[in-house]
Amino acid sequence: MPPSALRRVRAAYARIAQVDRPEIWIDLRPRAEVEAEAGAIDARVAAGERLPLAGRLLAVKGNIDVAGLPTTAGCPSYAYEPTADAPVVARLRAAGALVLGTTNLDQFATGLVGTRSPFGAVRNAVDPARISGGSSSGSAVAVSLGLVDLALGTDTAGSGRVPAAFNGVYGLKPTYGLVPTEGTVPACASLDCVTVFARTLPEAEQALSYMSTGPSRLPERAPGPWRVAVPSTGRLGELDPGWAEAYEAAAARLEAAGARLQPLDLAPFTEAAAMLYEGAFVAERYTAVGEFIEKDTPDLDPTVASIIRGARAIPAHRLFADQEKLAALRAQALAALGDADAVLLPTAPGHPTLAEVAADPLGSNARLGRFTNSTNLFGLAAVAVPAGTVGGLPFGVMLIGPAHTDERLARIAARLTPPTRVAVIGAHLTGQPLNPQLLALGARHDHTTVTAPHYRLYALTTEPAKPGLVRVADGGAAIEAEVWELPPEGLGTLVATLPRPMAIGSVELADGTQVPGFLCEPSGLENAKDITSFGGWRSYLAAGRP
Amino acid sequence: MPPSALRRVRAAYARIAQVDRPEIWIDLRPRAEVEAEAGAIDARVAAGERLPLAGRLLAVKGNIDVAGLPTTAGCPSYAYEPTADAPVVARLRAAGALVLGTTNLDQFATGLVGTRSPFGAVRNAVDPARISGGSSSGSAVAVSLGLVDLALGTDTAGSGRVPAAFNGVYGLKPTYGLVPTEGTVPACASLDCVTVFARTLPEAEQALSYMSTGPSRLPERAPGPWRVAVPSTGRLGELDPGWAEAYEAAAARLEAAGARLQPLDLAPFTEAAAMLYEGAFVAERYTAVGEFIEKDTPDLDPTVASIIRGARAIPAHRLFADQEKLAALRAQALAALGDADAVLLPTAPGHPTLAEVAADPLGSNARLGRFTNSTNLFGLAAVAVPAGTVGGLPFGVMLIGPAHTDERLARIAARLTPPTRVAVIGAHLTGQPLNPQLLALGARHDHTTVTAPHYRLYALTTEPAKPGLVRVADGGAAIEAEVWELPPEGLGTLVATLPRPMAIGSVELADGTQVPGFLCEPSGLENAKDITSFGGWRSYLAAGRP
Repeated sequence: MPPSALRRVRAAYARIAQVDRPEIWIDLRPRAEVEAEAGAIDARVAAGERLPLAGRLLAVKGNIDVAGLPTTAGCPSYAYEPTADAPVVARLRAAGALVLGTTNLDQFATGLVGTRSPFGAVRNAVDPARISGGSSSGSAVAVSLGLVDLALGTDTAGSGRVPAAFNGVYGLKPTYGLVPTEGTVPACASLDCVTVFARTLPEAEQALSYMSTGPSRLPERAPGPWRVAVPSTGRLGELDPGWAEAYEAAAARLEAAGARLQPLDLAPFTEAAAMLYEGAFVAERYTAVGEFIEKDTPDLDPTVASIIRGARAIPAHRLFADQEKLAALRAQALAALGDADAVLLPTAPGHPTLAEVAADPLGSNARLGRFTNSTNLFGLAAVAVPAGTVGGLPFGVMLIGPAHTDERLARIAARLTPPTRVAVIGAHLTGQPLNPQLLALGARHDHTTVTAPHYRLYALTTEPAKPGLVRVADGGAAIEAEVWELPPEGLGTLVATLPRPMAIGSVELADGTQVPGFLCEPSGLENAKDITSFGGWRSYLAAGRP
Repeated sequence: MPPSALRRVRAAYARIAQVDRPEIWIDLRPRAEVEAEAGAIDARVAAGERLPLAGRLLAVKGNIDVAGLPTTAGCPSYAYEPTADAPVVARLRAAGALVLGTTNLDQFATGLVGTRSPFGAVRNAVDPARISGGSSSGSAVAVSLGLVDLALGTDTAGSGRVPAAFNGVYGLKPTYGLVPTEGTVPACASLDCVTVFARTLPEAEQALSYMSTGPSRLPERAPGPWRVAVPSTGRLGELDPGWAEAYEAAAARLEAAGARLQPLDLAPFTEAAAMLYEGAFVAERYTAVGEFIEKDTPDLDPTVASIIRGARAIPAHRLFADQEKLAALRAQALAALGDADAVLLPTAPGHPTLAEVAADPLGSNARLGRFTNSTNLFGLAAVAVPAGTVGGLPFGVMLIGPAHTDERLARIAARLTPPTRVAVIGAHLTGQPLNPQLLALGARHDHTTVTAPHYRLYALTTEPAKPGLVRVADGGAAIEAEVWELPPEGLGTLVATLPRPMAIGSVELADGTQVPGFLCEPSGLENAKDITSFGGWRSYLAAGRP
């Protein structure tokens, strides 16, 4: 049984206090207010209402309207009081999500660093000396630290993906126009997309399905395995140490999962990326907030203000020239893409420290957008995917594909996600009655082994009969176990459908590794028979349940 | 038998000399050169080669590359010598068309008047005191005066349609991207389309089919009659005297031909139209030729130079704001269009004299674009259709529809074209052997009558037997005739397939009107029997061919 909305809210506020990252939030709502909403959600669910996101906790980037909170865009003197939720917020709330507050961002969503804010630089979730990435800094860190389940960001140059990568979470950058941008402060109105962060891909996808206006028209493709375009690492420019290897490992993982890798000329992508700030496109930021910037209020971030102010004098004839050049690069990029379903790229070329960004605010930021900047300019969709760690820090890759291939990209991203493992010892073993449940979740038998010699096995009085595995301090034995690989969402489903008194916890295997595995609640052991001497559930059954 | 290419070229040069409109041409090719090409075409056709446009005479607007002629864009100091034909020219030539030369235009295609050129103002084909319309001025007049069969124009704000209307010819403004613009001097590269003028719709359509890159993906429509959106004339703004009535007559003609008229809110169309020169979009003209304009050569048209120079300082942030506003207007326009297949509009609100334009170069020009300017901004397709005359001057209407509905618009335009009439007196009469030929051409029996009493009728010795109608000075009689209505292209086909010794010429009917009708070459009368006394072919046959 999933925790009630009220319980989830209480746990979240406790955790928010515990992590002590005040810079994540611009406005955290009063706990009592959110608890009241949670109670109402619980009551509606109890009354039988279907609320698919009931009790999911949501953080909203500070440039998106939440009724009752000021919309600051990271600039208090700019703030206004929205009279209504942005449609995207309203849709998630209508499905049962609970808004905890608005999150910090690079002011006016101008930056990929997460440091350009009078509310303070947002520190990385894993290493507080490093940047969070931006501009959706607070949202990504809030998800990464488990303060919320979902968070909204925006993405113009990569703001919904770079912070996902740096904090080890998923970030969906939908096709332009799929998710309404009404009720958001524009950065570049012709490029802005509302994005969502989550710790798992299914959660992010589920949220996106409620955020979207109508279903996406998924373009057709020729049959066959997923075709993924992969530029050679030699063409990626300078990457942080270990990142090329991590990228290649991600590509190899896709290939091992059945995707066909094909080469890609990255030049049109990186050329277009360089145009975003160097060219005339930055003038759209002046269109959005230039008049306000001219007032020169003291809480303007100096870097952001200088970028936007510098865009005032860019002539329109240069913009037309850039738009024409961009159209040509886009045609080249689509030709380079060919029949590929997606491009696989590192989300960013490296992960700087707060000090490095402070020393070179513009240069460090420009470098971060090398792989993300062209996505929106080309009208493409993207998914940022956690892909392990390098030196203890999250490493992320990106799948970029044609407009309206959002769902397809997510399917490919799912293949990229490292599978989870689960140790089964009873009804889920090969040939046993519940084994088909595992197969339906996309699980694959990895190997058969035994636990470390610290367990006792019981035959429970459940119907049908099941074994209970219990760790003991002394007198334990090694019990037969099968290790299965399955997608993380598969394991989540398994856990969500577990009947009492079964539980899943960490099980130590003979080789000393710990994997999630089937255990048993203490209550289930009542009247249960110790069958440890059989060495496993199958041997016990084979002996005719003596 | 159609005239040979060589014969057509000779006739064209004779007519060019005769009409004495030197301002039409920027570079008219030497007659001998074109004759040599025509001879080669004739030889290829004689050798059995299929050249669908063999011997069709083509004029090319002076901003489109023709190998061997300078591309001036109406400005000699800007001119360059193209090394190759623009693709669109090359495609028409490959199909057999013969280029006679390049035509005059509003300099840098900046204008709808046809007067902004150091090569002189192009005078209207029908009334030399009036403007030709522009910017494709020379091309439209060349077609209207019968100097060429086809002429290429370009259209950014209406340059392929306004001159079509003022000179009583068809102008096809294809969907953006359908026809390549490579090898043309850009006006606004993101809006420019290459267009074609012709005196008949089928000729224009045939040419467009060779100009286009690949077939157009015609959008689906709900079944039923053509749905044509027609704004009330009260919302069209000030029109020249008699133009509202002419417009309403055109709408009534469509309705009579089976189209369903529905109302339209024209506001988003006219608001967008006003943005083209008043807003930031004009800066794209500076992108195209601004650097050249800054050199201030003496042959710059002062109006054109001031417009383009004035666009230099327009800031990019204003352009972004305009692009956003335009996107909103476009959404409104498409919503207003609803399920309509097309909008019917007057092509222009009025037809000024050369003196009126000289007195107010900017104001008169702006007024001309009221109905055309928004088409390209909205990414729509259009067909300019001659729709009779008002006060002896051509009046034209426009059908505007969604992108890629080019063919559909032409089908609707065909219903708008006033049908031609033909008087038949023999084998094409109702119930006679060749009557099905008429029906296949879309003909409709209008009425049965007799000729004026100035004809004699002969039974020719042809196989099958046919009558020959011969006008005589004295001793003529009234002969039975049927008058049929058919589309002009149908009459063209009929003429093209006529076997010797039959001919079609002007026949005087009993009511004194003249209609095209079946006559006979003199040679056919040899050994023919005078059957005038029977009063008609049917009576003669009924009498058993005595």
